[in-house]
Amino acid sequence: MYPVAGLKDLCRRYKRVYRRAVAADFPQDPIKQLELAIEAVFKSWSAPRAISYRQINGIHGLRGTAVNVQAMVFGNMGDDSGTGVAFTRDPSTGENTFFGEFLIDAQGEDVVAGIRTPQPTSVMDKWNAEAFDELLKIKKILERHYRDMQDIEFTIERGRLWMLQTRTGKRTAAAAVKIAVDMVGSRMITQDEALLHIPAEDLVQLLLPSFAEEDLAKATCVARGLPASPGAATGRLAFTVEDAVRRTEAGEDVLLVRKETSPEDVDGMHHAVGILTSTGGMTSHAAVVARGWGKCCVAGAGELHIDARRKSVLIGNKRYGEKDILSIDGSTGQVLLGTVPRTEPSLSADFSTIMGWADKRRKLRVRTNADAPVDAIRARDLGAEGIGLTRTEHMFFEGDRILAMRRMILADTREEREAALDRLMPYQRDDFIGIFTAMKGLPVTIRLLDPPLHEFLPHDAGGQREVAESIGVSLARVRRRVHQLHEFNPMLGHRGCRLAVTYPEILEMQVTAIVEAMIRCRRKRIDAKPEIMIPLVGIESELRTLRQRVEETIDRVQEREQFSGALKIPIGTMIEIPRAAITADEIAHFADFFSFGTNDLTQLTYGFSRDDINSFLPHYLRDGHLERDPFQTIDRAGVGVLIEMGVRKGRSARRGLKIGICGEHGGDPDSIAFCAEVGLDYVSCSPFRVPTARLAAAQAAIRSKGRGRT
Amino acid sequence: MYPVAGLKDLCRRYKRVYRRAVAADFPQDPIKQLELAIEAVFKSWSAPRAISYRQINGIHGLRGTAVNVQAMVFGNMGDDSGTGVAFTRDPSTGENTFFGEFLIDAQGEDVVAGIRTPQPTSVMDKWNAEAFDELLKIKKILERHYRDMQDIEFTIERGRLWMLQTRTGKRTAAAAVKIAVDMVGSRMITQDEALLHIPAEDLVQLLLPSFAEEDLAKATCVARGLPASPGAATGRLAFTVEDAVRRTEAGEDVLLVRKETSPEDVDGMHHAVGILTSTGGMTSHAAVVARGWGKCCVAGAGELHIDARRKSVLIGNKRYGEKDILSIDGSTGQVLLGTVPRTEPSLSADFSTIMGWADKRRKLRVRTNADAPVDAIRARDLGAEGIGLTRTEHMFFEGDRILAMRRMILADTREEREAALDRLMPYQRDDFIGIFTAMKGLPVTIRLLDPPLHEFLPHDAGGQREVAESIGVSLARVRRRVHQLHEFNPMLGHRGCRLAVTYPEILEMQVTAIVEAMIRCRRKRIDAKPEIMIPLVGIESELRTLRQRVEETIDRVQEREQFSGALKIPIGTMIEIPRAAITADEIAHFADFFSFGTNDLTQLTYGFSRDDINSFLPHYLRDGHLERDPFQTIDRAGVGVLIEMGVRKGRSARRGLKIGICGEHGGDPDSIAFCAEVGLDYVSCSPFRVPTARLAAAQAAIRSKGRGRT
Repeated sequence: MYPVAGLKDLCRRYKRVYRRAVAADFPQDPIKQLELAIEAVFKSWSAPRAISYRQINGIHGLRGTAVNVQAMVFGNMGDDSGTGVAFTRDPSTGENTFFGEFLIDAQGEDVVAGIRTPQPTSVMDKWNAEAFDELLKIKKILERHYRDMQDIEFTIERGRLWMLQTRTGKRTAAAAVKIAVDMVGSRMITQDEALLHIPAEDLVQLLLPSFAEEDLAKATCVARGLPASPGAATGRLAFTVEDAVRRTEAGEDVLLVRKETSPEDVDGMHHAVGILTSTGGMTSHAAVVARGWGKCCVAGAGELHIDARRKSVLIGNKRYGEKDILSIDGSTGQVLLGTVPRTEPSLSADFSTIMGWADKRRKLRVRTNADAPVDAIRARDLGAEGIGLTRTEHMFFEGDRILAMRRMILADTREEREAALDRLMPYQRDDFIGIFTAMKGLPVTIRLLDPPLHEFLPHDAGGQREVAESIGVSLARVRRRVHQLHEFNPMLGHRGCRLAVTYPEILEMQVTAIVEAMIRCRRKRIDAKPEIMIPLVGIESELRTLRQRVEETIDRVQEREQFSGALKIPIGTMIEIPRAAITADEIAHFADFFSFGTNDLTQLTYGFSRDDINSFLPHYLRDGHLERDPFQTIDRAGVGVLIEMGVRKGRSARRGLKIGICGEHGGDPDSIAFCAEVGLDYVSCSPFRVPTARLAAAQAAIRSKGRGRT
Repeated sequence: MYPVAGLKDLCRRYKRVYRRAVAADFPQDPIKQLELAIEAVFKSWSAPRAISYRQINGIHGLRGTAVNVQAMVFGNMGDDSGTGVAFTRDPSTGENTFFGEFLIDAQGEDVVAGIRTPQPTSVMDKWNAEAFDELLKIKKILERHYRDMQDIEFTIERGRLWMLQTRTGKRTAAAAVKIAVDMVGSRMITQDEALLHIPAEDLVQLLLPSFAEEDLAKATCVARGLPASPGAATGRLAFTVEDAVRRTEAGEDVLLVRKETSPEDVDGMHHAVGILTSTGGMTSHAAVVARGWGKCCVAGAGELHIDARRKSVLIGNKRYGEKDILSIDGSTGQVLLGTVPRTEPSLSADFSTIMGWADKRRKLRVRTNADAPVDAIRARDLGAEGIGLTRTEHMFFEGDRILAMRRMILADTREEREAALDRLMPYQRDDFIGIFTAMKGLPVTIRLLDPPLHEFLPHDAGGQREVAESIGVSLARVRRRVHQLHEFNPMLGHRGCRLAVTYPEILEMQVTAIVEAMIRCRRKRIDAKPEIMIPLVGIESELRTLRQRVEETIDRVQEREQFSGALKIPIGTMIEIPRAAITADEIAHFADFFSFGTNDLTQLTYGFSRDDINSFLPHYLRDGHLERDPFQTIDRAGVGVLIEMGVRKGRSARRGLKIGICGEHGGDPDSIAFCAEVGLDYVSCSPFRVPTARLAAAQAAIRSKGRGRT
């Protein structure tokens, strides 16, 4: 930036130009005036609001701002003067009506400041019909020229219309869709342009309830967390899973308020209308699970001091208990006092039109991450072409299953373990039948058990006593097992395929359940298409031996079931360990497909734990060490290099290897663009992000054509 | 392997050959005999002992074994027959004397089986002088032919000598050194061959006490752990740090027995004669610290159930308490009952000769990892050319410092934190003065604070109460801070340079201490050469901003101290995060040197936590998923690719960038060979591994010349 001290020189240098342009109108010292003006510009550039605006909108690395100096027109020269702002179409609905306000005998800042109440432009023709007609003509010219809806400012000085500014207008997702379709209808823009005009990210807004702007403005924000899963929810506070379930079943709307969540909490999370946590980031357990369900979640609201035992939370100096009502806005991360009115979503015909155009255009296929039939159906309705990730661990927490699961974990011998697994198998099989049925012949990628076993055991004395009693083993045995299974860094521990290597009977149970489900569906003429995905592979021999065991199990079950049809079940792996990307050529020999698990890959490539990152991530974003949260948007320079390497090496060993992504990035438009660039076949994302992914994939295809890449 | 069922066919096919070779001597059915023989070979190949031998010796990927069929000679044909085994030189001392045993009227297996007591070959000339002379001649021929000491088997059939087998003889490290030097002296081999003949790994044996083979054979092994740090130690059991310190100071030899150790335990570990843990791997805290000190450690002895409160440990069914004596063998991982006699080390002139030859040959420089003057002096005596890693965190645990450290961590404001840091600074400065003085002008790479802050706070209620009282804050505040700092995956948490980014005052204190120490040394005419190393960098901007802050601090201290001499302090970074290797070209712009932290790099590349790996690592090694523990030997296919990338990209941005390694791999011969191949400038390892590293570096240089790489 130019130092303020040097302004005088600068002004003197431009003296001549300045005089010609402005001086005639202003008898006062023009140099002094110019100095003041430029100083104002600098002040405005470095105002805290401007800084945080640039931060929020990801505007980085600028060295300053350009300034145009020009003559001014005045709207405050009497009753034949005035000023106004307008959108060329309705920015809320997209309706093609001129939408603005004006004030007679006023300057622009008077309209914005809200000191006087402006009139709608719909009555402007009564005041100055000529100017209004001209305005409508200019509206059309501007829209045709810029090929988009405009946000304009104008002034009428002594009866004559002057245009002050025009820029592309901000709009809601609904308006964006309608405007895009309308403009194609009136041949103002092409379908490709229409697709590019809609921010893919915003489509999520159309699918979830939200708080209206005006209600939000009136509400009191008591804390802020991360916008972990969009939507809007209001409820009384529940501090334990049991309370959340019991009170929901008694008809109450509750928000589950927890320090963080774990797989044990899934039942309570499912019952609650929304989830609020005090730690954890955008890809914490709470965030990932909530997004998968389209449930509103605000995560990592650090100002909350939760006391689960006292069933209350301290925010600032005020304590909130079970009877208090809070609202959470999953799109902004705001925690609001009391009830805030919500708007429910509904999808328009224009939305379908846009999705249809997107589907014609995109090359990437779009799958979904879904663990239950209800999510699978929702995702298919939103256009998912299959399931890219079915996690099987959540399935073990429901009802009696957790007992059998715990019995399996507490088993001392392989026989005991197998007995417990035999009890789990039918549950798993029925889960899979449900999902296959919901997906009606679309492929379903099932990931074998991933989390470390200790996630399935309670860590408090009370819970352990309960487990001991219900299973009929000694408390000491439960404690010893919890102790044995304890890990310093569970993320890097005994999980994923490492479980299948050391306890192959778990893998065999899961594969048996998949194959039995597939056969039962086939016999009912339901075309089940499972794909088996082995997680956390880092060494070729892991996949080689596990693949063989999967194949043997498939053959055994098929024989036992006396099913004579062909069972083609692709067996693939996740690429989520850096070493897997680096040795992808070796691994590809045993993989029918790859799916990049970019959550873990990002954790390992950066050495960041997404559960712990909040202690320094805000600092890193503020100081520019990170331009964006790498768990939201793929870090091209680091993680991206490993992905490219994985794709290149994988396909070098196996031509045309099918490759997808099932990390959270699969629903992020920028990351989807990256996936398209490196040649992935599909992305998989949460059900509510499927439309976003379809549109983003189309945009990537259009842009790559623009760069001559097709 | 050839299936046993097919043997008959195999035998029939070779019938003709077989008949000609053997049949004449054996009237019985020759086919049947051959079948039996081949079956015996298969059995021997798949015997459990053979399998575990191949495993221990890293012999992998074989498809079977070759078998020679030949006529047999017999040593059991009367008193003029006999059989013997011998080494051409003494395998314990290396003495050039024929060293063997023979039995009259016996077969080879009788010698090995130990049913009869054989006679030494020194009396053989009294029985058959002619055969003995011939044997001595053959010994010379074999040694000259194979250019190494031989292990031979012979038989005398009816007075005539037959050689059955010769192979290179196994020997102790001391013998290896002496034999190599003697053979060069008698011009049998070159210096290069001498260097290649000595297993670099074995040199550690020469520097540490050990149990003699015969004593070990008599001792009772009660458990087995990992050979985490070589040496031999005997002591009564201590279960807490306090007990270890108190009882050692009272004159007792104690073994510190812990589930695992943490930085809080360093004082007790230092006092104990040896360390025994029940969890943790070869690179757990206990293992790394103990190796650094040359202190004996057996880690991860899973059979131990330690009850620190009752001050006893359960092994099998037996409980051992504070009064019981155990011995641990850090070279084998054995835990032995009672006292086992130890042999103390002493270095020969031949050792110095070998080291001199190695130093002439090697291209890699060898530094050491040392945190205290005593270790620095030891390493310099063993030939270290500088310190490649001084960890600063251990320094904060001694005496009063931990109080100031905790005060710093508990501080609510930057001012409080700075006040606590001001108290720590003089301690740090004096530590650095001690190390600079010990290293007498050799470079000293100091790593800034690395572990997460919670490692410095006690996690038990008692400890927290004590901290609250001694610092004069409320227990609630201590608890809250412990709670705030808690991390799910500390390895991936708020540590390394992330601490310096969020708490720059910690970095400033450490840099101040370094610069003040340097200036004070210089004023006493001690040539201090610090290098400042910033850990855990994953993003170029971390290093950019921290480097700037380090430079500013250096300037400020120099000015305040009114020191006019030039202070050239290189500032570099560790490459231990995959992303750092991938973006090494960006990072190199701000680094005067790189040092690969291969412990963390291996953890992240594999997604393995070295503290938790024991739950599946043994299984992985047994089943061949891993050929070797990647924390011991660099995994070339995975981690190695990142290291190569880091070197290539780093030097592409900064020609001739100095690059070293300071992970545990820096002392492993195979890894050192890799470091030489990828063009590193130096390795840094524990003091006791410095001779190993010097020799391994020389071997790498010789082998690379052999491959025409020089």
